[in-house]
Amino acid sequence: MAATGKKIIIIGAGLCGTLLALRLAQRGYKVTVYERRPDMRKTDISAGRSINLALSDRGLKALSLAGIDKDVLKLVIPMHGRMIHPIEGTSQFVNYSGRSGEWINSVSRGGLNTLLMDKAEETGQIQIHFNCECRDIHFGDTSLVIENLQTGLSHTDTGDVIFGTDGANSALRNAMLSQSARWRFDFSIKFLETGYKELEIPAAVDGGFRLEKHALHIWPRPGFMMIALPNLNGSFTVTLFLPFEGKVSFSQLQTDQEITEFFKKYFYSAYEQMPDLLEDFRSNPTGSLGTVKCFPWQIDGRFLLMGDAAHAVVPFYGQGMNASFEDVLVLDSLIDTYDGDWSLIMPEYQKNRKDDTDAIADLAVDNQYEMRDATADPVFLLKRRIELYLEQQYPHYFSKYSMVTFRADIPYSQAMHKGRQQDAILMQYAQEIESFDRMEASVILKKLEHLYV
Amino acid sequence: MAATGKKIIIIGAGLCGTLLALRLAQRGYKVTVYERRPDMRKTDISAGRSINLALSDRGLKALSLAGIDKDVLKLVIPMHGRMIHPIEGTSQFVNYSGRSGEWINSVSRGGLNTLLMDKAEETGQIQIHFNCECRDIHFGDTSLVIENLQTGLSHTDTGDVIFGTDGANSALRNAMLSQSARWRFDFSIKFLETGYKELEIPAAVDGGFRLEKHALHIWPRPGFMMIALPNLNGSFTVTLFLPFEGKVSFSQLQTDQEITEFFKKYFYSAYEQMPDLLEDFRSNPTGSLGTVKCFPWQIDGRFLLMGDAAHAVVPFYGQGMNASFEDVLVLDSLIDTYDGDWSLIMPEYQKNRKDDTDAIADLAVDNQYEMRDATADPVFLLKRRIELYLEQQYPHYFSKYSMVTFRADIPYSQAMHKGRQQDAILMQYAQEIESFDRMEASVILKKLEHLYV
Repeated sequence: MAATGKKIIIIGAGLCGTLLALRLAQRGYKVTVYERRPDMRKTDISAGRSINLALSDRGLKALSLAGIDKDVLKLVIPMHGRMIHPIEGTSQFVNYSGRSGEWINSVSRGGLNTLLMDKAEETGQIQIHFNCECRDIHFGDTSLVIENLQTGLSHTDTGDVIFGTDGANSALRNAMLSQSARWRFDFSIKFLETGYKELEIPAAVDGGFRLEKHALHIWPRPGFMMIALPNLNGSFTVTLFLPFEGKVSFSQLQTDQEITEFFKKYFYSAYEQMPDLLEDFRSNPTGSLGTVKCFPWQIDGRFLLMGDAAHAVVPFYGQGMNASFEDVLVLDSLIDTYDGDWSLIMPEYQKNRKDDTDAIADLAVDNQYEMRDATADPVFLLKRRIELYLEQQYPHYFSKYSMVTFRADIPYSQAMHKGRQQDAILMQYAQEIESFDRMEASVILKKLEHLYV
Repeated sequence: MAATGKKIIIIGAGLCGTLLALRLAQRGYKVTVYERRPDMRKTDISAGRSINLALSDRGLKALSLAGIDKDVLKLVIPMHGRMIHPIEGTSQFVNYSGRSGEWINSVSRGGLNTLLMDKAEETGQIQIHFNCECRDIHFGDTSLVIENLQTGLSHTDTGDVIFGTDGANSALRNAMLSQSARWRFDFSIKFLETGYKELEIPAAVDGGFRLEKHALHIWPRPGFMMIALPNLNGSFTVTLFLPFEGKVSFSQLQTDQEITEFFKKYFYSAYEQMPDLLEDFRSNPTGSLGTVKCFPWQIDGRFLLMGDAAHAVVPFYGQGMNASFEDVLVLDSLIDTYDGDWSLIMPEYQKNRKDDTDAIADLAVDNQYEMRDATADPVFLLKRRIELYLEQQYPHYFSKYSMVTFRADIPYSQAMHKGRQQDAILMQYAQEIESFDRMEASVILKKLEHLYV
């Protein structure tokens, strides 16, 4: 079917929506995008939430499809591994991969979104309307009611297909949920006991980085942790992950003294680098962390949820944005397969993709424990050392982390199944040998070989 | 704390809301109830959905607390067991219990709700406002916005506490969900592939029952089934449970001929008793079957979800209403424990009750398979025969069904855990012996004894 004449409406000009718009425009579709927020290129959008993100191979593969990976890579800071900061003693750097050329990239959400909007508009096929909130969905005639938040005026727009890429609190998804019995729309949202708050380690006086630049920094502590990702301007965006309630929790950090003592006690090395800690702590919100799963994602080949709207995940695997970009890649390949017939593309897309986004959602929840607790566990650190050795010596060996992060050719669900089995075998082995000197590669490879048939 | 002076608002005058209102009034509270629908005592409310229900011991225990069990029992028809109608051959009656005095009761939803409303209003402490829909909840000051659907006028009402007993599509729950991150409100809704449609076997010309009166009738078929419960007027309410899609499904029943042939082929004995089949089939909606779970149920000791609003279940265990009535029983006992202090009662209530309503939700999903598939399986029928024998001979033995249905003293979660273990042991044994003649009670009791310590 010819793309021409088909009108596409996209709700949400975030990362997923703009990449989708760009790719559809490249295929010849006319695309109208409605975005609730003002144009971030003209207005300073309130910060305090996910200022930077980790971009890895799945995301890059999708950006490459749209021909903008090289532009994006100019905006990133490579992070080659985790710098683990114990409560006392020396920091330890642990590579993400035993192979060269495998790392993840810190990128500014705003910078990347701006680039995507610019590239999308350059096609001349895409209109992005800002300050436009979706108020209602009419499933019968594929239309939606849009309110211009600046004028207060509403209008109805009708498309051939409507995409909801409007994030974790998606208007399209909420409309499907409000008629859940009609669509037999399964939905779940599940929160962690842990909340988060973004803070900052500013650039040094000379403009340089106060910590190792090419690392994702982790301060693992019992039941909570802090992380930091580098920004181009020399600063780090710091995120404190801490339970809302309990003995050591956000609820216990009320006074300046309580906040200061907490950071001094648990994060002294970082505390020294955070001159605006109290101000940041008070002015930035304490966010919740939830996983959203739902199904079906599509209705009648005319409506489709993508990105966080379909599968919001917690941030602990650094895969939320990558999974959303990969959504565009998977959809794009089906446009070829089904020659642009959305009534075939959308059902196949959701069938193809659901297991994989469920898998990354579950992996992300699990990874909180790995980052927060396991990185402080000697057995886990030995296991990682063995894995890095295997990755260096045996080209066919990939850790779970590597399969998820660097192997865009392996679906998330396969990476999860194989990776979990590997992890169990290697943790068991690390426990047995207790020391890296006692490792025998042939023994491990034997234990793992059934996974590589 | 004294009940006097505390203003209670209840959203929803269904079965749970009216029993709750009645019980709170008996304790001296003033209660305002808002109900979206018209007064069913004055208006004929559209039928076609769950016309009759199965009332059993948990429900009766709660009704007894409110002193109205004897009035309710005048409205019911006891059902002593399942009458199983195979596709060919003779029907078989299987008791619900091996003990005398244990049965379930068919009751009209409307008749029971009417009685509850009458009893509630008789207290003089309760105002039920009909045609009043909850449009908004203000969590800050414990108020809600009510629209009178007849006048179109809205007003705000403020209470000390607000209960949401407004069913599977609860306005209070939806308000909590719309601010899910604020309350870290976990929510899930999950639908079955199976839908349902209510039909009727009318009374015989002489006013009598066309099928055995004191039975729950089941026509088990591969992947679908039909059931029928007796009504006081001699009719049976029939429910067809059938997948929405597939080879044998609602989607295949479009023309009169398709509908007629389907019933003739699979339900001939019932078909002969359904003179208005085609009219009923076309005029009654095809309903979806979903399970709702959520948590927390309460906010700040001021808002509480109860009944289907907190835990909507599928109908296959006949426990939805009973679980909702039991909610009132559990809450009532905590009012004593905590001397009417809602800030203690509500958190304790949700903590105490959540595992049990999760259990009955899961049991209800499982029981679809038991009713639809197992009742046509010789091994299952042998297992049930063994169980009935055990119940007759050994007073301490209770089947899972009996624990759930007749043992209001055993929480649902315990009934589930113990019952599932028993089921596995007995199914295994039935498979081994193949015939009732080979049963040795001492052998079975030995296999089960670890569950009775």
